Amino acid sequence: SRTLRLAVIPGDGIGQEVVAEGLKVLTSALPADVKVETAEYDLGARRYHATGETLPDSVLEELKGADAILLGAIGDPSVPSGVLERGLLLKLRFAFDHHVNLRPGKLFPGVASPLAGNPDIDFVVVREGTEGPYVGNGGSLRTGTDQEIATEVSLNTAFGIERVVRDAFARAQARPRKKLTLVHKNNVLVHAGHLWKRIFDAVAAEYPEVATDYLHVDAATIFFVTQPERFDVIVTDNLFGDILTDLAAAVTGGIGLAASGNINPSGAFPSMFEPVHGSAPDIAGQGKADPTATILSVAMLLGHLGYAAEAAKIEVAVAADLAERAALAAPRSTSEIGDALAARVAG
Amino acid sequence: SRTLRLAVIPGDGIGQEVVAEGLKVLTSALPADVKVETAEYDLGARRYHATGETLPDSVLEELKGADAILLGAIGDPSVPSGVLERGLLLKLRFAFDHHVNLRPGKLFPGVASPLAGNPDIDFVVVREGTEGPYVGNGGSLRTGTDQEIATEVSLNTAFGIERVVRDAFARAQARPRKKLTLVHKNNVLVHAGHLWKRIFDAVAAEYPEVATDYLHVDAATIFFVTQPERFDVIVTDNLFGDILTDLAAAVTGGIGLAASGNINPSGAFPSMFEPVHGSAPDIAGQGKADPTATILSVAMLLGHLGYAAEAAKIEVAVAADLAERAALAAPRSTSEIGDALAARVAG
Ligand SMILES: CC(C)[C@H](C(=O)O)[C@@H](O)C(=O)O
Ligand SMILES: CC(C)[C@H](C(=O)O)[C@@H](O)C(=O)O
Repeated sequence: SRTLRLAVIPGDGIGQEVVAEGLKVLTSALPADVKVETAEYDLGARRYHATGETLPDSVLEELKGADAILLGAIGDPSVPSGVLERGLLLKLRFAFDHHVNLRPGKLFPGVASPLAGNPDIDFVVVREGTEGPYVGNGGSLRTGTDQEIATEVSLNTAFGIERVVRDAFARAQARPRKKLTLVHKNNVLVHAGHLWKRIFDAVAAEYPEVATDYLHVDAATIFFVTQPERFDVIVTDNLFGDILTDLAAAVTGGIGLAASGNINPSGAFPSMFEPVHGSAPDIAGQGKADPTATILSVAMLLGHLGYAAEAAKIEVAVAADLAERAALAAPRSTSEIGDALAARVAG
Repeated sequence: SRTLRLAVIPGDGIGQEVVAEGLKVLTSALPADVKVETAEYDLGARRYHATGETLPDSVLEELKGADAILLGAIGDPSVPSGVLERGLLLKLRFAFDHHVNLRPGKLFPGVASPLAGNPDIDFVVVREGTEGPYVGNGGSLRTGTDQEIATEVSLNTAFGIERVVRDAFARAQARPRKKLTLVHKNNVLVHAGHLWKRIFDAVAAEYPEVATDYLHVDAATIFFVTQPERFDVIVTDNLFGDILTDLAAAVTGGIGLAASGNINPSGAFPSMFEPVHGSAPDIAGQGKADPTATILSVAMLLGHLGYAAEAAKIEVAVAADLAERAALAAPRSTSEIGDALAARVAG
């Protein structure tokens, strides 16, 4: 019998609720001989207020022993903006070198897109996860005065770009359409942008079957709403990836369906799976949150750990459930959606 | 009799074509006693290839004498990405301290939005134009090697933020809905983001009638497609403003209609008006470009120079023309659209 050691960080707001449903579906999808050991970590706003801690070293150490991490959502209005994001979520992504931040953008049949004509959307964004403007390399001078100056430094390395670009080419090569689009802003951010483009072009030479394309980030947002079917795989920097994947979620039926994986392909540290959405404090505790994004993130988690059949089962179940949602008389609660998906996956 | 001294920079690609129509409509809108003196500057790819120059000091000096600048589009695939953008377009914005980059997002009646249900969109983005990641403060080390490191520094000053935030509050106060949304990413870019938020909140106290809101840039892109009617005035940084205004153009019927003004409110240097779109080399010289964005930019130019009635006439003419476009049997050429608008404005 196998054991799956899962670290679970429900986090803030609706994080608790959606993670519970994610675990329900995960257990239901796995064969009986797989033992799931979950260790839940109380991190987020509550702990911060109680102890001042965001991510203690001891917890970081323990997390290293997990096969994977399932995270709900981080952030609460009672905590100054940035404290939990930088001190917990981004700290995990950086400490565990999650350089492949994988975010599918797929419009499932039956799901209404805000775009007229419900276009055929099925792409995946490979967002760099450990560099760019996210490195936390900023500061301020004369803080709080009329003379304040604040900086943010975007750091980009050939090493960091090459590994994520290679990952994206391999993914594009494995997909039927074999198309990869680089998104940056190399007409303005010329140093970072030219480095991305140089490496992209060099790796492209090794993948003659992959059709490549370059778009400035501003132009990319246009195509996300006017021609999203043109995209297959997209590779981009940390900040542009953040922006584009929220937009991708919006055009594919909303943030309630958008899954993500923070992946360390080497396996040196556990990868972390989380919905793209935030903690949504306005609807927390009311059973209103859609757990589907978390459940799809659980599918990514299982796929990453080698449970391909179980991951596929969850995706099929979600697709079937989504196809029937429009016909429902009333919206279901968070746990009703989780129950329905767990039942489909088991059945 | 009055004189309007206009510097004209057609630039690259379709820039030439759309600027010609812009000038046609401008002349047609002005009363006979206003003398228009245009000085055309040959800047862009052709000049760069011929002389290596992007923006000679002598030209910059001459441009200072203009009442306003009308620009078509800058950029060509034959020139390395960034050379003309940084050496000409951004150089003008920075040299003339165009700190208010004004970009309306309006869905005109009769124009089809790619968004289902054609929502009611009428907002304006006040994009900061002289700071942030656009300052050109980056570099690279070990360039061209496997060890390359590239940086981009975002510079943000209390001075620079306060003046654009004040401009945005004044605009919000003057509009019927009196609503202002700050867009940034202060949960990640904490130094720059907190400076923006601190100043925004401080100025807000002076405008009790203006309702305020804050959104992270990623969340803002979601609302641009799911709920664009929620926005009235948006104030944001240079890069986020670049991204959001292309998205705004997309949801309001396309980049062919999106106008912009690079404004120096003090009048110390001439302001510059240009369509948001680029040089579109793929359709250049074919009479296919839509000059409407340039013509709406001409309206902004006239409004800025105190010709409010003439600006309004152009906007009314564009609205009327757009309302009838859907019924046209065939698309009109660039000059046919210009002619039609010039005739409406004169009539
Ligand atoms: C919460 C925030 C720090 C995070 C990010 O910016 O990466 C979120 O927006 C995301 O996309 O996962
Ligand atoms: C051409 C480019 C430098 C420019 C910008 O990034 O500002 C353009 O995209 C714009 O929005 O005016």
